[in-house]
Amino acid sequence: MERADLVELIFRKKTFLCVGLDPEIGKLPTHLRDMGVNGVLEFNKAIIDATREYAVAYKPNLAFFEALGPDGWRIFDETVRHIGPTHLVIADAKRGDIGNTSRMYADAFFHRYGCDAITVAPYMGEDSIKPFLDFKGKWTILLGLTSNTGSDDFQKKWLADERKPLWETVLQKAVQWGTPDQLMFVIGATHPEAFARVRAIAQDYFLLVPGVGAQGGDLAAICQHGLNDQCGLLINASRSILYAGAGIDFAERAAAEASKLQQQMVVYL
Amino acid sequence: MERADLVELIFRKKTFLCVGLDPEIGKLPTHLRDMGVNGVLEFNKAIIDATREYAVAYKPNLAFFEALGPDGWRIFDETVRHIGPTHLVIADAKRGDIGNTSRMYADAFFHRYGCDAITVAPYMGEDSIKPFLDFKGKWTILLGLTSNTGSDDFQKKWLADERKPLWETVLQKAVQWGTPDQLMFVIGATHPEAFARVRAIAQDYFLLVPGVGAQGGDLAAICQHGLNDQCGLLINASRSILYAGAGIDFAERAAAEASKLQQQMVVYL
Repeated sequence: MERADLVELIFRKKTFLCVGLDPEIGKLPTHLRDMGVNGVLEFNKAIIDATREYAVAYKPNLAFFEALGPDGWRIFDETVRHIGPTHLVIADAKRGDIGNTSRMYADAFFHRYGCDAITVAPYMGEDSIKPFLDFKGKWTILLGLTSNTGSDDFQKKWLADERKPLWETVLQKAVQWGTPDQLMFVIGATHPEAFARVRAIAQDYFLLVPGVGAQGGDLAAICQHGLNDQCGLLINASRSILYAGAGIDFAERAAAEASKLQQQMVVYL
Repeated sequence: MERADLVELIFRKKTFLCVGLDPEIGKLPTHLRDMGVNGVLEFNKAIIDATREYAVAYKPNLAFFEALGPDGWRIFDETVRHIGPTHLVIADAKRGDIGNTSRMYADAFFHRYGCDAITVAPYMGEDSIKPFLDFKGKWTILLGLTSNTGSDDFQKKWLADERKPLWETVLQKAVQWGTPDQLMFVIGATHPEAFARVRAIAQDYFLLVPGVGAQGGDLAAICQHGLNDQCGLLINASRSILYAGAGIDFAERAAAEASKLQQQMVVYL
């Protein structure tokens, strides 16, 4: 999905919600939990169908599929197909390796599974990231400032020569490697104070923003400095939507939660 | 595999070689390439059987299995089983995510696939790494200074408060999180000058050292400062062994290459 299409989708549907798909068997409603791996697929499909109109993107996190063994990958594949071309599909895989190896990861997620985007970890630098950017019409979403407490440990460390923290240096280097048509950044909602700095470095880039919902981030605070003239934000919520209900009405409860977030977004578009 | 067992294995077999399993269908001998995914499994088994006596560890890189789709994970599983308990099995996956998600990755590789170790990327900090360390009897191998040129981009950046580069800070923090019985570091063979610094920070820790062979690292230079009194090194070679031959004698050629490396190692033990 090209940037123009994503922007059109956002303004037409009046939402910049991304639904994170982190299906844990132990958290599924009982009737699905008893079905095992296929219950996970049914759960994903029900969540997707219930939230389609409120979202522009889905973000399956690969850890939750990988933990199911080879069958988990079949279900990942079927989940991606079920989403279809109407939404941006982000493989939240946080991959990254030396060049020839990153190319294998990119090929897997972009070609074999048909995802639009993949999250990538920056630690290994340019030649670990470039192979993802070589795929035309696909998105690389680089970790910048993540939503977890561990973001203090290295990402916020001050670099002597650059006179800025590591995460800002990651953004500043990466905008030289990829354009706003192929590169986005992960910036956690738990750091609302960071968004003005992000926009000073990466004005036109889309940001994938996890941490609203279960992790406590505040939508208004993010939008204040995070929005750009093409919206430029994809706000992700996972657990707060997936597990809004634990009974047979889980999909309706998920829809209600997604709708609530979408209604909060309308005012910013 | 506990540290004492690994050390015993190294001194008994007189080798600290790790064979990296990066099977690319396009690079397989013709008779295996034509078998598709099952050809990859046959290739892995033949390489493993040919190199067993020269190696103490195998390191399948997940990118090369993931690229094969769900079948690739079946083959990964069968490859790990084929290696068996006689060697340390390192899942080179470079995973890392927020806490509850890292736990899913750890569970997949340690429990479902029965690997002994997994490589982990440090960018997301402590709470992304700790879940791997929670698994008793298993190893977390944290990226420190990687072998690729991109290691210049962020890993070597000088931190103002710490007065050392990022990669040294990663080691210094991590030795507070995990003991030498559960934590190792990746230090690329392409940085022989770094090993004295590594040993100043992490004297007793094992190091996984990629970059000998195809990437050009020098064994003697690494051993000079990298060895400790329990050896403390696992030297990885992948492509130089896997693709030593391209014909039906590929396994013999791989054995010869592994044997050559092992003979170079004898003098250091």
